[in-house]
Amino acid sequence: MKVEIISTGTELLLGEILNTNFTYLATQLNRRGYDVLYESTVGDNPGRLKAVLAHAASRADIVITSGGLGPTRGDLTKELVAEYCGLPMHTDDAVQAQIAAFFARRRITPTHNNDKQALVPDGATVLWNDVGTAPGIALEHGGTTFILLPGPPSELQHMCEHQVFPYLERRFGNLGLIQSHTLKVRGLTESGVAELLDDLILAQSNPTIALYARHGDILVRLTAKAEGKAEAERLIDGVRKVVEQRLGVHVYGCDDENEAQVLGRLLAQRHQTIACAESCTGGLATSLLTDVPGSSEYVMGSVVSYTNEVKHRVLGVRQESLDAYGAVSSQVACEMAKGVRRVMRTDVGIGITGIAGPGGGTSEKPVGLVYIAVADARGVVWKRCQWNGSRESNKLRSAVTALGLAYDRLTGIDRVDGVVAQEMAH
Amino acid sequence: MKVEIISTGTELLLGEILNTNFTYLATQLNRRGYDVLYESTVGDNPGRLKAVLAHAASRADIVITSGGLGPTRGDLTKELVAEYCGLPMHTDDAVQAQIAAFFARRRITPTHNNDKQALVPDGATVLWNDVGTAPGIALEHGGTTFILLPGPPSELQHMCEHQVFPYLERRFGNLGLIQSHTLKVRGLTESGVAELLDDLILAQSNPTIALYARHGDILVRLTAKAEGKAEAERLIDGVRKVVEQRLGVHVYGCDDENEAQVLGRLLAQRHQTIACAESCTGGLATSLLTDVPGSSEYVMGSVVSYTNEVKHRVLGVRQESLDAYGAVSSQVACEMAKGVRRVMRTDVGIGITGIAGPGGGTSEKPVGLVYIAVADARGVVWKRCQWNGSRESNKLRSAVTALGLAYDRLTGIDRVDGVVAQEMAH
Repeated sequence: MKVEIISTGTELLLGEILNTNFTYLATQLNRRGYDVLYESTVGDNPGRLKAVLAHAASRADIVITSGGLGPTRGDLTKELVAEYCGLPMHTDDAVQAQIAAFFARRRITPTHNNDKQALVPDGATVLWNDVGTAPGIALEHGGTTFILLPGPPSELQHMCEHQVFPYLERRFGNLGLIQSHTLKVRGLTESGVAELLDDLILAQSNPTIALYARHGDILVRLTAKAEGKAEAERLIDGVRKVVEQRLGVHVYGCDDENEAQVLGRLLAQRHQTIACAESCTGGLATSLLTDVPGSSEYVMGSVVSYTNEVKHRVLGVRQESLDAYGAVSSQVACEMAKGVRRVMRTDVGIGITGIAGPGGGTSEKPVGLVYIAVADARGVVWKRCQWNGSRESNKLRSAVTALGLAYDRLTGIDRVDGVVAQEMAH
Repeated sequence: MKVEIISTGTELLLGEILNTNFTYLATQLNRRGYDVLYESTVGDNPGRLKAVLAHAASRADIVITSGGLGPTRGDLTKELVAEYCGLPMHTDDAVQAQIAAFFARRRITPTHNNDKQALVPDGATVLWNDVGTAPGIALEHGGTTFILLPGPPSELQHMCEHQVFPYLERRFGNLGLIQSHTLKVRGLTESGVAELLDDLILAQSNPTIALYARHGDILVRLTAKAEGKAEAERLIDGVRKVVEQRLGVHVYGCDDENEAQVLGRLLAQRHQTIACAESCTGGLATSLLTDVPGSSEYVMGSVVSYTNEVKHRVLGVRQESLDAYGAVSSQVACEMAKGVRRVMRTDVGIGITGIAGPGGGTSEKPVGLVYIAVADARGVVWKRCQWNGSRESNKLRSAVTALGLAYDRLTGIDRVDGVVAQEMAH
């Protein structure tokens, strides 16, 4: 089934908004076995929009429009599709009642032009809008299926899930669903992972197993094709269990799960607590940790120490260390990690000190040099990083790396630059 | 001049990447007086791409393609445009030399298929690529101007600035440039701003002055049309000075300048320092402050106090206040602000305490309730906020509001819910 998406709206042609609706539709339709071959963007102009509709109908089996279903004069899509198909429109009482109810719930009086939204081309199927006023429309004409969707992304996505994909399946049958999950792996090389999964990769065809390397992580992508989501998930789940068993603690997350979520899950499981002493990251590591719902269970607090004086007085970093090694040093990172662990009375302490840039670098300690330390009951480990990005990017990479190092340390898969054993610590 | 943009690439049709190239091109071309009327996305398929090219040429004066200029077999745009126009291609020695130099600088040996990138249709203009290997191409055929650009956004944008816009100006003359700057205003209503600027808004036609309200700020947009950028900036500058004079400290930023930059500029000017005590924002306010280069001049440090115990022991919040009013209260926010100001020895202290959600709310203190306080030598002011967003959105709005309140307090334009004078403070 060949699909063309038509995106309408002057704001797209002015470059004022990114076309996220198209990205969503393309992803979802491809996953469901439809070939999205064309996308066209056109403004709210009757002549041009009608010509684009006709051209799309000549080269695609399914034409999906987004936008132009609102109550204003500039909203033309439904009217022009009806005109192109030669279909008169009638007021749909059920749609009108739904729009009235939508406004009533919000205690707003609908204006006269909302009547336009209750018009439906004769013979069309209404795609109900549970989160807005503009209903979608599906209709067949001359061998082409037209599906008209509202422009606001939340309305479009909700309507796709609940109305459009079921409609397409009723109309064209189940073309199969492609589902993927990606496991993130730490502390192993790509060839190391390949060796551990070699026989599985060869033997498996559904789901397939593919390896990628990205930002120092190895990704294991499991992709299944099935009739529906439940069946695809079941297929993936079986193989995922085997993969996780073989890779053990090296599997640290799935799909969009990030370092803060993974570390947080581990801390919550173990009933352990954490605190950060942040210099160059300026609170970002703690902010990432506290983005996770429920993080108050294990995050006790943090200290941002942007000056040497605060490092010394609040965190207890020794003046001699600051004088001898400078604030950006493995020694100070370690003392910060230990200091904040003591001040906040936590199981784990993170220390981060470095030069985020763009200024402040020297030839010995260039911009992007960052020391990260993790302290726990066993002692302190540290790691030296050299970033080359912008200030914000250096902050983010440092914060994420620190959370990763804490995960590695807690799971025992750490590969660090230095270890200070407990007995050596002061 | 009617323009159509053709975006090529299977990754677009699979929904894997957002079409930021189109947004860039549309914005820039509209600013320069060109009418972008159509955009088409099509995959790397010879038949379909050629048909899309022909259709675009039939309805636009200028057809701009992005993508498909790389060295692989899948890169077809140049070949198909040459074929469509009936133009043979030749190897351009200067282009070949530039590609060789590009690889030499990176100590990479070019592969045979890079030769393809040095092919240029007869009679075409080369658009030099200073940041990649694929040169762009401009050519005229049958009344249509074709401009072929590489897909990577950084290469496309660099080529537009340095090659494409000058080419278009040589070819079609200067159609004028539209330039805008937006001033952000705090502490005044839209009608208040309108009254102060009324005569200017009526009198000015170039630049025009327009008012908008967004997220509680009033925006004053100055838009000029001129032959070039320098002239447009000069026109805007003249009116901007008058607007700034009339609105005074209420003008707190321009264009993309954010709360952290504005507050930072003020603190740096006054040689004042700041620290934050953050509960529900978990370090985000300090992270935003330290995103600004040079912020180490005025940010001394911060304390994230995620537990009552840390609020009491590290920040000196009184146990009686925690017991009597709870951690989420104006009293505790004020004591946090004063406490961190004392601990970090700063001129200004910010205190933020609230319920970020999704859990932790009660009927008395629902999710999204946040108290923000700012302490300085004069005492403490506080503000009560009730957000309705996600955890991350509640954190961000709280942090940004806190920085804004500090700005308002320092400039004396604060509209707060409560003030605790210095003598009342303990």
